[in-house]
Amino acid sequence: MLDALFKPKAVAVIGASAKELHIGNQIIRNLLDFGFKGSVYPINPKASEIRGVKAYKSILDVPTEVDVVHMAIPALFVPQAIEDCGRKGVKLVILNGGGFSETGPAGAAIEKDCMVRARQHGIRIFGPNCQGIINTDPEVRAYCNFTFTRPEPGSISIVALSGGVASLIHQAFADMGVGTRLYASNGNACDVSIPEIVQYFGNDEKTRAIVLYVEGLRDASRFLEVVRKVAAKKPILAMKAGRTEEGAKAASSHTGGIAKQEMATDLIFEKAGILSFRDEAELCQAGAVFASQPVPHGKRVGVITNTGGPAVIATDALVAGGLTIPVLSEQAKEVLTNTLFPEASIGNPLDVLATAEGKHFRAAMDTMMDEDQIDSIYINFVTAPFVDTESIAREIVEVNRQQRKPIICNLMTDKGQWTETVRILKDGNVPIYDFPGAAAKALAALARYGEIRRRKTGKPKLFQDVDQWTAKTIIEQAQGAGRKTLSAAEVYGILNAYKIPVAEWRIAANAEEAERCAAEIGYPVVVKADSGSILHKSDRGGVAVNLQNGRAVRAAVNRMSKRFDAQDLKFLIQEYLPGGKEIIVGAKAEEGLGHLVMFGIGGVHVEVLQDTVFKLSPVTSAEAQEMFCSLKATPLLGAVRGKKGVDKKGVTQVIQRVSQLVTEVPGIQEMDINPIIAYEDHVFAVDARISL
Amino acid sequence: MLDALFKPKAVAVIGASAKELHIGNQIIRNLLDFGFKGSVYPINPKASEIRGVKAYKSILDVPTEVDVVHMAIPALFVPQAIEDCGRKGVKLVILNGGGFSETGPAGAAIEKDCMVRARQHGIRIFGPNCQGIINTDPEVRAYCNFTFTRPEPGSISIVALSGGVASLIHQAFADMGVGTRLYASNGNACDVSIPEIVQYFGNDEKTRAIVLYVEGLRDASRFLEVVRKVAAKKPILAMKAGRTEEGAKAASSHTGGIAKQEMATDLIFEKAGILSFRDEAELCQAGAVFASQPVPHGKRVGVITNTGGPAVIATDALVAGGLTIPVLSEQAKEVLTNTLFPEASIGNPLDVLATAEGKHFRAAMDTMMDEDQIDSIYINFVTAPFVDTESIAREIVEVNRQQRKPIICNLMTDKGQWTETVRILKDGNVPIYDFPGAAAKALAALARYGEIRRRKTGKPKLFQDVDQWTAKTIIEQAQGAGRKTLSAAEVYGILNAYKIPVAEWRIAANAEEAERCAAEIGYPVVVKADSGSILHKSDRGGVAVNLQNGRAVRAAVNRMSKRFDAQDLKFLIQEYLPGGKEIIVGAKAEEGLGHLVMFGIGGVHVEVLQDTVFKLSPVTSAEAQEMFCSLKATPLLGAVRGKKGVDKKGVTQVIQRVSQLVTEVPGIQEMDINPIIAYEDHVFAVDARISL
Repeated sequence: MLDALFKPKAVAVIGASAKELHIGNQIIRNLLDFGFKGSVYPINPKASEIRGVKAYKSILDVPTEVDVVHMAIPALFVPQAIEDCGRKGVKLVILNGGGFSETGPAGAAIEKDCMVRARQHGIRIFGPNCQGIINTDPEVRAYCNFTFTRPEPGSISIVALSGGVASLIHQAFADMGVGTRLYASNGNACDVSIPEIVQYFGNDEKTRAIVLYVEGLRDASRFLEVVRKVAAKKPILAMKAGRTEEGAKAASSHTGGIAKQEMATDLIFEKAGILSFRDEAELCQAGAVFASQPVPHGKRVGVITNTGGPAVIATDALVAGGLTIPVLSEQAKEVLTNTLFPEASIGNPLDVLATAEGKHFRAAMDTMMDEDQIDSIYINFVTAPFVDTESIAREIVEVNRQQRKPIICNLMTDKGQWTETVRILKDGNVPIYDFPGAAAKALAALARYGEIRRRKTGKPKLFQDVDQWTAKTIIEQAQGAGRKTLSAAEVYGILNAYKIPVAEWRIAANAEEAERCAAEIGYPVVVKADSGSILHKSDRGGVAVNLQNGRAVRAAVNRMSKRFDAQDLKFLIQEYLPGGKEIIVGAKAEEGLGHLVMFGIGGVHVEVLQDTVFKLSPVTSAEAQEMFCSLKATPLLGAVRGKKGVDKKGVTQVIQRVSQLVTEVPGIQEMDINPIIAYEDHVFAVDARISL
Repeated sequence: MLDALFKPKAVAVIGASAKELHIGNQIIRNLLDFGFKGSVYPINPKASEIRGVKAYKSILDVPTEVDVVHMAIPALFVPQAIEDCGRKGVKLVILNGGGFSETGPAGAAIEKDCMVRARQHGIRIFGPNCQGIINTDPEVRAYCNFTFTRPEPGSISIVALSGGVASLIHQAFADMGVGTRLYASNGNACDVSIPEIVQYFGNDEKTRAIVLYVEGLRDASRFLEVVRKVAAKKPILAMKAGRTEEGAKAASSHTGGIAKQEMATDLIFEKAGILSFRDEAELCQAGAVFASQPVPHGKRVGVITNTGGPAVIATDALVAGGLTIPVLSEQAKEVLTNTLFPEASIGNPLDVLATAEGKHFRAAMDTMMDEDQIDSIYINFVTAPFVDTESIAREIVEVNRQQRKPIICNLMTDKGQWTETVRILKDGNVPIYDFPGAAAKALAALARYGEIRRRKTGKPKLFQDVDQWTAKTIIEQAQGAGRKTLSAAEVYGILNAYKIPVAEWRIAANAEEAERCAAEIGYPVVVKADSGSILHKSDRGGVAVNLQNGRAVRAAVNRMSKRFDAQDLKFLIQEYLPGGKEIIVGAKAEEGLGHLVMFGIGGVHVEVLQDTVFKLSPVTSAEAQEMFCSLKATPLLGAVRGKKGVDKKGVTQVIQRVSQLVTEVPGIQEMDINPIIAYEDHVFAVDARISL
C-alpha cells in the first residue's frame, strides 16, 4: 500500500538547498507553506538550516523515523543515498532528479542499480525524473513536490507520469476554483506504477473522480485488470497522447517508454469503463463537473439562458455531444408564462431575457428541476449591467445545493468587475465556464459517464459446443512443423471445431477426387488452389466460381495444376453461394493484452473506406451487437426495398465465437474470415486464413 | 458609409436614466468612462443631469448637431422619437431596446414603421434589439454600447448580430489581453447589415483581422459578393451557429431570422476565403494570433519545449491541425548540441529541459528562426520554480519583436504568482495560451489562413462551345407547358447543348422505330420507358439492358408497352456501356444564391454513406479538381492492380459544364446526372433528370 507515500509522518529532502532556484529548496518551501502536518528534515552536509528548519548532514542523523525521502541530487549519487536510506529504514524515496533511463543506457544502468538496492532494503521508489505527490487532506497536507500550483483541498485526484501535464491539469483545476485531493506524478515510474496509484486513489474515500494522463501503457493487461475495478466504483477521466505518429515519437523520446498503438489504448479505456478525452482542456473542464455535480439519469437537457446567441451555440454543442433538448411539458410552459416576462421565449432553450432577475432564474430552474423529461440543467448567464447579478448567482447556488440534477453554468462576464457574482457561484460549487461550448462539452461528458455507468456489457458468453482440443491440436501440429500459416484444411478444421458455419468443403488432390467431392457437396461449386505458397490466388487464376458440373470442375483443376507448380498444391472444393452480403470478421493478437477482434463489410468498405470496428477480446454479446451496429455501412446490412436484412444473430455469434477461439487458443496471432456470406437467416464463412 | 456611426462627434441617449441598473444609464457611463472624444447628451424629460452631464428634455433641445442617437425606450415610443430625430437632422439611431420583430407580428409592425419614418428622414437604423458599437481609436473612443467588457485599443474588429455572442468574443479577447479595434452588434439588423459593417471594417486601415459570428445569412449572395472582396485584403474569422436542427430552431426563435441550411453557409465561407470555425473558444483563441503574428509561409512548425508531456500533446494537436513537424538540419542540431544542456533532447520537438534558462530558449528560437524548413514556432513554457522565468519571457518577447515567423506560446503557470512573467509576455504581444492544444489549434488556424491566401482557385472557365440558346429554349418550352420535370429527350438535348458527353441515344415511339434506332446506334443497347409519369422505372421493369439484337429490342418495347399505359410513353434507345465506374454529378438551386454543385460516386456511396462533395456555382477548374479528390471513396477512381484510373479530366469537365449550365440557364431548379459512366479515357452520361 502507498500510505507511507501519501500519508507520510516525516519527510526528508536529500539535496536540500539554500538557493531559492533549486528543487531541493522548493520542496521544503512547499511543505512548509502548505502546512505539512509531519516533520520536515532538510539533509545538507554544509548547511545548518534551510528556510529556518534545522538541517542534518546525513539522513542517518535524523532523530525520528522517516517515511519519505526526496532526492534532489545528481543521479550518480543516488545509489549510495538509497543505501543510506536503507540503513535508516526509510519506506519510500522520491527521485526528483533526472539523469536516469530517460537519458539513455548509462542513465538506465543507474536506474537499475537504484532498483536493486531499493529492493534489498524494502524501499519503494517513486520516479525517478519526477515531481512527487500531493495530499491535501487537512490531516496530512503533504506537498511533496516542487511544482507551483497552490493546492486547495477538493475531491479530484490526478495521476500522470508526465510532470508537465500533471501540473497543467492541476493548474487548470485551480484556475477553475476546483480543489484537488491526491496528486501523483511519477516520471519514469521504475517501481511505483500508474495502476498501483489508480488503485490507491480508488480506495481513497474522499476521491470523487480520478483524472489520468498517459502516453502509453507499460503493462496493458495489468492496467486493464486494476483500472476496471476502480472505474466500477468511481469515474476515471483519461487522456492518451502520442496519438499521431509524430506525437508517439515525441512521447518515446522524452520518457524512453513505448507509445502503444493508439487503438489498443482506446479499446482498453472503453473496456475498463474509462471516460476518454482527446483534448486536455476538455478533460479538465469535464473534471470540474465531476467535482460537484450528481450524475444525470439521462441525456435530456433543459437550457436556461438570458441571451439568445450563446443558447444557439450551446444547443449545437449539446446536441453534437449526444444530448437532447426535449420540449417542455404544457404544465411547465403555463407556469413559466405566468412567472417570466411576457417577452420571454418559453421553450427549450428557455430565454428568460437579459432583464431577468433572480426570481425569474429561480422559477426557470425550479420548473426544469420538476420536469420529468429533463435530466440536467445548462445555464447561460450573461451579467447584464442593468440587473442585480448577485441575486441571480445566489438563486443558482441555492438550487445547486439541492443536488437533484446536475447544473452547469456558462458565465459570460468580466471577472475583474463582477467579482462578487463569480465568488458566489464558485463558493457555491457551481461549475462555471467561459464559453457555451466548453460548458456543453463538460455536461456531455458527465452524461456520457452516466451512460457508461448504466451500460450492461454483460459477461462474454462461453459457447459449450466448441471443440477446443481439436483446434489446439491443429495449431500445435502446425507449430511443431515450424509453420506460420495454416492450410485451408487446417483453417476450416478450426472453424468447424468452433462451430463457425462454413460453406461445405472438401480437399481434393486431383481432378478425379475434385469431381467426386463436388458431387458430394452438390453443384454449383467453387474450386480454389490451396497451397501455403500461393498469394493473391484470385488475381492469379487460382479461383473458379459457379462451376455447374464435373466437366467444369475437372477443367478448372487441370488449369490450376498447370499454372501453379507448388509441391503442396491441393484443391479446395466448396459449395458456391451466390447472393448474400459479404462481411469480414478478424482477430489480431496485441502484445501482452489479448486480441483485437474486428468486424467489417466486404468490398471497398474495409480497405478503401476503412470502415471497421474493433473490440478487445473477450467480446460479449452486447459488444458484438454494438459492433454490428456501429459501421458507417451498417445500413447496407439492413432491410432495403422489401428485402430482409442479414442474419444479425448469426453475424454476432461468429464475432463471439472468433473471440472465444482466440482467447482459448492463444497461439493464433492473426485470423481473418473474409468473406463471410450473410443471408437473411444464416451465414457461411467462405474464405479464411490463420497465422501463428 | 458608416462614419457617422463609428466616428460620431456627438451622441445623445433618448431614455437616459438616473437609475444605475438601466441601459440608458449604462451607455452614458460607458461613454464617459471610456473617454469619448465627442459630446454626450442625455435626453430625459424629467432629469436635469445624468451622471453629472446636463440632460435635455428633448433631442430637439440639444444645442449641437447629433450623429448618433441611442434609444433605450419602449418600442411603442420609438417611431415618434425617430420623427424627432428626423427634425433634428440626426444621421443614425441605435435602437437598443427590444420589443420589435423578435417578439412577433406586432413588434414587426413597429419595426417596419420605424424603417419607413427613418427612410423619409434619411436616417439609418442600427438594430433594433441590439447593443451598439465600439470604436477604440484614440481619436474617437466611442463606447456606444451597454455591454460590460472594458475595451482596450487593438487590431481585431468584431461583428455579430447577437449581442451575447459579440460580448462573449469581446470578453474572451480582453481575457487574453488582446485589444479590439471596432465592435458592432446590430441585433435585428433591420437596416445597417452585416455585409455593410464587414465592408466598413475592411476599409478601416487599423483593423488587422475581422471576427464574425452569424446564425444565418439574410442576403447570401450580397454577403458573398461583399465579404469576398474584404477577405482578399484581410483575414476574416467566422463562426456559424445553428448547425444542428435544434440549434437552428433556437436561432430562429431568438432573432426571428431564418437559419439557412448549414452547408450553404460553409460553402459561402469557403468561396469567400473566410476562415471558418465550429467552436467559439477556438475562434477567439485563433483571433489572438492574428492580432500580433505574421502569416506563416507554410505548415512546418518548430516546437520548443521545457517539458516533455505537453510537447506530445502539442505535437498531436499540431499534426491533427494539418501542420508538420520537420526534422532539424544537421547544422541546427550541431549548434543546439553546443548551446543547450547535454541532457537536452535535440530534435523537433526540441526539449530544452525544465532547467533551461533564457539563453537556452534564445538559442533554440534563433536556430528555429534560421531554419529554412521551419515556418513558425510553437513554444511550451512551464514556469519551473527553479529558474529565472522572467528572463526567458524577455527573450521570447525579443525574438517575437523581429516578426520573422509567427511565434505562439503555451504558458503553463500560476498566473497569480508569475505575474511579472505573464506581464512581460502580454506586453510583448506574444500570444499565450493555457493549454497546448489551444495554442496548437490557434497556430493551425493561422497556417490555414496562409493556405487560403496562397490558394489559386482561378476564375470559372467559360466553355465557348456550348449552345445556351437551345438549352434555354427547351426549358422555356417546358415552363410554357407548365411542366416541372423534363422528358428524357429534353434532358439529353440540354446535355448535348452543353457538350456533356452522353451515351448515344434515340427516342422511339414503337417497336419498329426502336429496332431501327438500335441498329443506327449499334448493338448492344439499352431500352428505357420514357414518360414523365413513370417513377422508379428500373424497379418497375422500365429498363432493359444489354440487348443484343432487334428481336430483344422489340420484345423489350412490347413488354414495356403492356406494363405502362402512360399517354406520353416513348422509348429511349441508348448505347449499352458495360464496365467503367459510376459517378454522379448534380446541381441544386439555393434560394438567392445560385446553385450548389454536387459530385459523388455511384452505388452505396451517395445514399448510404453520404460521401458527397458540394461547391457553390460557378465552379472553377481548381475547385472541380478539389471535388474530384476530396471524396472518401476517391481512391476507388484511381489506378488499382494494374488498371488505370478513370478519366479525371473528363469528370472535372462535366462538373464545370454542369456548373456553367445552371449558371447560364437558371430556370433549372435541380439536376442529377446519375450515373455517369467513367472509363479510363472518356465519360458518358447514361441517365439524367432535370426539374424546374
